[in-house]
Amino acid sequence: MYILLNGKFKQKNEVSIDFEDRGYQFGDGVYEVIRVYNGSYFAMKEHMERFVRSAKEIKIVLQNTAEELTAMLNELLRKNQVQDGAVYMQITRGVTGRKHLFPGQDVKPQIVAYPIPCSKPAAEQEKGIKLHLMEDVRWLRCDIKSLNLLGNVLAKQEAFENGAYEALLHRGEHITEGSSSNFYGVRNGVIYTHPANNLILNGITRMKVVELCEKNGLTLIEEMIKADDLVNLDEAFITSTTSEVIPVIEIDSMKVNGGVPGPVTRELQRLFEEMID
Amino acid sequence: MYILLNGKFKQKNEVSIDFEDRGYQFGDGVYEVIRVYNGSYFAMKEHMERFVRSAKEIKIVLQNTAEELTAMLNELLRKNQVQDGAVYMQITRGVTGRKHLFPGQDVKPQIVAYPIPCSKPAAEQEKGIKLHLMEDVRWLRCDIKSLNLLGNVLAKQEAFENGAYEALLHRGEHITEGSSSNFYGVRNGVIYTHPANNLILNGITRMKVVELCEKNGLTLIEEMIKADDLVNLDEAFITSTTSEVIPVIEIDSMKVNGGVPGPVTRELQRLFEEMID
Repeated sequence: MYILLNGKFKQKNEVSIDFEDRGYQFGDGVYEVIRVYNGSYFAMKEHMERFVRSAKEIKIVLQNTAEELTAMLNELLRKNQVQDGAVYMQITRGVTGRKHLFPGQDVKPQIVAYPIPCSKPAAEQEKGIKLHLMEDVRWLRCDIKSLNLLGNVLAKQEAFENGAYEALLHRGEHITEGSSSNFYGVRNGVIYTHPANNLILNGITRMKVVELCEKNGLTLIEEMIKADDLVNLDEAFITSTTSEVIPVIEIDSMKVNGGVPGPVTRELQRLFEEMID
Repeated sequence: MYILLNGKFKQKNEVSIDFEDRGYQFGDGVYEVIRVYNGSYFAMKEHMERFVRSAKEIKIVLQNTAEELTAMLNELLRKNQVQDGAVYMQITRGVTGRKHLFPGQDVKPQIVAYPIPCSKPAAEQEKGIKLHLMEDVRWLRCDIKSLNLLGNVLAKQEAFENGAYEALLHRGEHITEGSSSNFYGVRNGVIYTHPANNLILNGITRMKVVELCEKNGLTLIEEMIKADDLVNLDEAFITSTTSEVIPVIEIDSMKVNGGVPGPVTRELQRLFEEMID
């Protein structure tokens, strides 16, 4: 496997990260996971725009343009001959003696990118999944796709230990999103999802779902869902780069739509599949 | 310099971190910074207890007892002949293919520890410092000394760019702490500081200050200070392992105690100095 390390292609065993990399000591960096279908990146432009925005929000100065980064990632794909999968890319603020303050401009950001295995979660997409509801304890800048993912990791693990596929987070009385996915509820044919503000990560698949709804006459409203109103949902589903669209048929002990995927979810799955093709 | 890496002592250039270390990709780990005075660790027992607790809170299973870790850190100190400084130690969940869920038990935590420069901030302790007030956007488990420090990093940088030495964070109407320090206000001879709950990191120096107050007849109350009440403080100060006790003489454009360190702060500085000796 070829790894992209600061513009150069290396073998896995040639890549060594410094223990004083700020990514290692502070999680001081941002990342993207980009899906690859049939040997091509899906929604590369949107991923790259978000990557640039995330870096800017935490004031990492990119050493490459989005176009240069895209070219490198294309080369990475070609060299590794990825057909179906994903590419992970992260940037950190660089290597320097440990202190909170940003280092000087002589310290350069570190970029690592490499292919990660990813396949369609076909069984989950077909049958639907269970979510486990829990408090959202993450920071108030969830709009930044940062390497500070401990809250997400702990939520995912807790969900798993409670027999669920994914966490469903609520901040106080409102549902925000999953630990690595966006959440949607359907009521009377209208799709509701949390507004794209500082409390959620605006998923690329979420953006695509918003687009698909607009183009196909489905009503999607960016409005918070109350945890108490989950019981009133006709349908629910999650989306993410790796999940695509997955129906939610249970939230803890509560069945959604009698425990089977609903028609609006099925329609969005169909539209999303069509778009990928 | 000798680096302690998973129980072995290495030279700096022999230490290589894997890019799939969960510390690098998720900030999935915890740490301590332990002060060294006159060739000995200060408050090692408390630091080690907190380290064990932090690891437990994020469910990292330590491969060594606190006693074994302490022995290794003592050896690290001896080998590096540190007289005055600090030692940084971190543990991460280990190296494995990237996914949020915890890896299996075959994946072992990674520990890195090494000396970092640290000297008494004498000028700041003497003259006092300025703080810059800003919203606390960190997660709701600040009691865990985790590697998810991006919120702290950004706050420290913003403080610096506003001409301040440290950030003063408020969550809604209440002051919590600094970006890497605890905060205290003094009113009518009584010291107030945020309770040691999930919203702050219970500093080892904070613990020592609480002890010192008890032993020396100073009244310290663990009670939240409102941001609106900062104007009514007679004195203010911060504490941390590296700062010890530093007077606060300005909060943004507002002078505290007319811009000079107050008597209660001076007394605590004296008591802390005495304890170190």
